[in-house]
Amino acid sequence: MSIRVTVWGENVHEHKNATVKSIYPTGMHTCIADALNHDAGITARTATLDQPEHGLTEAVLAETDVLTWWGHVAHGKVEDAIVERVQTRVLQGMGLIVLHSGHFAKIFKRLMGTSCALKWREVGERERLWVCNPGHPIAKGLPENIVLNNEEMYGEPFGIPDGETVFISWFEGGEVFRSGVTWTRGAGKVFYFRPGHETYPTYHNAEIQQVLRNAVHWAAPTGALWAKPHGAPNIKHPPEVIRTPDPNAKGDTAGGPGHK
Amino acid sequence: MSIRVTVWGENVHEHKNATVKSIYPTGMHTCIADALNHDAGITARTATLDQPEHGLTEAVLAETDVLTWWGHVAHGKVEDAIVERVQTRVLQGMGLIVLHSGHFAKIFKRLMGTSCALKWREVGERERLWVCNPGHPIAKGLPENIVLNNEEMYGEPFGIPDGETVFISWFEGGEVFRSGVTWTRGAGKVFYFRPGHETYPTYHNAEIQQVLRNAVHWAAPTGALWAKPHGAPNIKHPPEVIRTPDPNAKGDTAGGPGHK
Amino acid sequence: MSIRVTVWGENVHEHKNATVKSIYPTGMHTCIADALNHDAGITARTATLDQPEHGLTEAVLAETDVLTWWGHVAHGKVEDAIVERVQTRVLQGMGLIVLHSGHFAKIFKRLMGTSCALKWREVGERERLWVCNPGHPIAKGLPENIVLNNEEMYGEPFGIPDGETVFISWFEGGEVFRSGVTWTRGAGKVFYFRPGHETYPTYHNAEIQQVLRNAVHWAAPTGALWAKPHGAPNIKHPPEVIRTPDPNAKGDTAGGPGHK
Amino acid sequence: MSIRVTVWGENVHEHKNATVKSIYPTGMHTCIADALNHDAGITARTATLDQPEHGLTEAVLAETDVLTWWGHVAHGKVEDAIVERVQTRVLQGMGLIVLHSGHFAKIFKRLMGTSCALKWREVGERERLWVCNPGHPIAKGLPENIVLNNEEMYGEPFGIPDGETVFISWFEGGEVFRSGVTWTRGAGKVFYFRPGHETYPTYHNAEIQQVLRNAVHWAAPTGALWAKPHGAPNIKHPPEVIRTPDPNAKGDTAGGPGHK
Repeated sequence: MSIRVTVWGENVHEHKNATVKSIYPTGMHTCIADALNHDAGITARTATLDQPEHGLTEAVLAETDVLTWWGHVAHGKVEDAIVERVQTRVLQGMGLIVLHSGHFAKIFKRLMGTSCALKWREVGERERLWVCNPGHPIAKGLPENIVLNNEEMYGEPFGIPDGETVFISWFEGGEVFRSGVTWTRGAGKVFYFRPGHETYPTYHNAEIQQVLRNAVHWAAPTGALWAKPHGAPNIKHPPEVIRTPDPNAKGDTAGGPGHK
Repeated sequence: MSIRVTVWGENVHEHKNATVKSIYPTGMHTCIADALNHDAGITARTATLDQPEHGLTEAVLAETDVLTWWGHVAHGKVEDAIVERVQTRVLQGMGLIVLHSGHFAKIFKRLMGTSCALKWREVGERERLWVCNPGHPIAKGLPENIVLNNEEMYGEPFGIPDGETVFISWFEGGEVFRSGVTWTRGAGKVFYFRPGHETYPTYHNAEIQQVLRNAVHWAAPTGALWAKPHGAPNIKHPPEVIRTPDPNAKGDTAGGPGHK
Repeated sequence: MSIRVTVWGENVHEHKNATVKSIYPTGMHTCIADALNHDAGITARTATLDQPEHGLTEAVLAETDVLTWWGHVAHGKVEDAIVERVQTRVLQGMGLIVLHSGHFAKIFKRLMGTSCALKWREVGERERLWVCNPGHPIAKGLPENIVLNNEEMYGEPFGIPDGETVFISWFEGGEVFRSGVTWTRGAGKVFYFRPGHETYPTYHNAEIQQVLRNAVHWAAPTGALWAKPHGAPNIKHPPEVIRTPDPNAKGDTAGGPGHK
Repeated sequence: MSIRVTVWGENVHEHKNATVKSIYPTGMHTCIADALNHDAGITARTATLDQPEHGLTEAVLAETDVLTWWGHVAHGKVEDAIVERVQTRVLQGMGLIVLHSGHFAKIFKRLMGTSCALKWREVGERERLWVCNPGHPIAKGLPENIVLNNEEMYGEPFGIPDGETVFISWFEGGEVFRSGVTWTRGAGKVFYFRPGHETYPTYHNAEIQQVLRNAVHWAAPTGALWAKPHGAPNIKHPPEVIRTPDPNAKGDTAGGPGHK
């Protein structure tokens, strides 16, 4: 069965900046969704900030196995109620892939519990993303590094809890960054992936697209739904089980440990 | 130099429930602070919900190395601005010890990013806390387990990210719980410690008091202050360093004298 | 495509102990393999200590996606060369499921780097395994706990590095144990699962069998093979890429950071 | 009380290579010990491969709080019995700091359980070590990065289990590396620190020396000794405790006064 992905895009730069519009004429979210839909095992649709409930209704999220998130200038416009809804779905098992400037998105900061801050510089320098674990599912089919000729720089310290490191970036100007990191939150898998500044054609890059597809496969839930992650039930103690006698009992047991 | 601790108490049950008042006539927070002050290396004071800014002003937090937190019925009355202030101090390096029903405190949920939910039962059953790492600083001086004759039960699943497990509880009624777990958030250390239901004399227990003192020593910052954890500076690339010539260089392609 | 599993059994108790023989007349390994083969997505075969190379030839391991390991009295008879071979396969991506007394198997101790020691008692007491993450793939389809009426007790401290906790056991006699824990080593996933003392019919239990099948699905590699995990190549620096000019470059870049 | 450090050096290159001898005329180990002894809170002595039991007798280790390890060409000459002895001491609580080419030392591979492999190049290029957590004790007093004008390059993938990342290196030639990582093994803390190729004066660098001193303070045990980490005792169940009646009990089904 196909993995159902919702590609969320802030969709603001595309309408205000001619460079961005020229690179992503139908929006960054559409470019990403198209890249995912090249995989027969993935069915991706899009949702954007300007839609009712930012396109992330209960119904949409209930049918979403993996959510990808790109935001930048409008983090503050995302309603807290929607952020809580997305968080709950992650705890239930939905995968979440946070992209680039989404490091400061409310949903990412909420799931990490930390600042998610970093250094940055925007001079279109070269980035080289090194694979830290060639056997990791998210690195499948990639060379030992991915080169992006022009990207924004993000530098350490990156204010995140330690996770599983999949990629580390080298920047021409002298910095490094943990560019691909995974965590588990409740039943959900979370992946942060650094590249994707809006004024560069990063999401048109074939290797970056491969990472996105790999990450969707990795993040898709394979366990059961954790239906009520926030539930705090008052429970009875477990029923006493009528035990079969221990067929091997001898000396040492002397009637067993005799609990209660 | 003495470790400066602020013991935060919700201080509500003590004024409404005769049992709690009889066990903790001067408040649970005072009992905890007294236990900490028996250690010559610790200087503990208290702060409570009803004080201005909940007793957690910028000035108080700036002078706090470790904050302990007990809350229960009034989590919702803790102001979000104070929660953010405490979170920032943790990211800067302040230690945080979250106690018992504090699992649902805003500050703990914010730092964890998860539900922090659990099962519970209140029948005064026996709890046995097992030490999972006898060499851990928080377990220093303890026997292999701590027995509490009457406690509330908390049961798994506990909705937390995986951390370092120091204690796991066994309950008479049949459940288990990760009762002592540590995490790092920014420069700050966080420890959750389960026991301490208000209607039982748990914080008068000598071994529980030992855990609290140990945890304060463990959580106290030993690194530098991370002054601006939320800062996201736009930076220049590092200056070129004038390198001394490599005394061993044999040409860029020779690759040196051979490694292994 | 079916997941290829090799079920490794020490196969010693079955030939020396009448109780074990009566419970597992064709060997514990056969019982486990049969349980796995009930899943159409799994193809399990067995290998035992007494076979040449313990049944774990290069050819067998090359065709093994997941290896399960049960050993007890003959850990010392497993040849170091075979242990190294298995370790290399795990680092390359093969999943490994270590069962019960396999906690002291050479391969487990080698992958953990710690003592893997624990307390134990054999009086046939009741064990209750609690699920710590209801959405974890290994817990799929299980109730909130699994009850085994008669089992050997294993108690904390368990000398392992912290991992992802999936199950914690409660024992009738008063102890607790991290009974299901996962780790990653190289490209391989490792799962330790506690139950399975040879004198009890644990591997005939339907829920235990479900855990084993779930664990196989979880541990099966989904990434690429990490072909030479031990390789330490002497490399040239990456080739200079001819960069396209940054279309957005202006003032600040002044020709870019100009590295080299 | 002063932290007792044993600085272990292979001490082979110093006697065979004129460059190394000129940089470290009394041995790399002596240079490191001198740097540590500048800290009034540290008392460092040295031990070398050529000494009886490699200078790491039971008596020496019993008096060692933190062991530092530099080896390269003679890893294979370190006796397995000594490696086991060191491992046991780490599990008991001794800190271990593994330096540079010590990544392939038997003791490091044993504690990690993985390949510990990496890429390398020796052309004397520039290395820049970035601090990933400015509040970490090991980064105390450091600038945001440390620059080494000439060093050997180590590149990802580094075959280690994920740990806590303190430093990541940028190399002039285009690679990155997790240059400072911490783990816990039993009661012991382990820190790997990358720089220190024998033909460069790295251990004379003031900032590198500061890292070494910081790391000693961080790695020194603060908990109790885990006396017998390999013990696997057969135990009785815990004694029944005579419980005081629950003063709040209202019958097993009443469930107490209500929780949340």
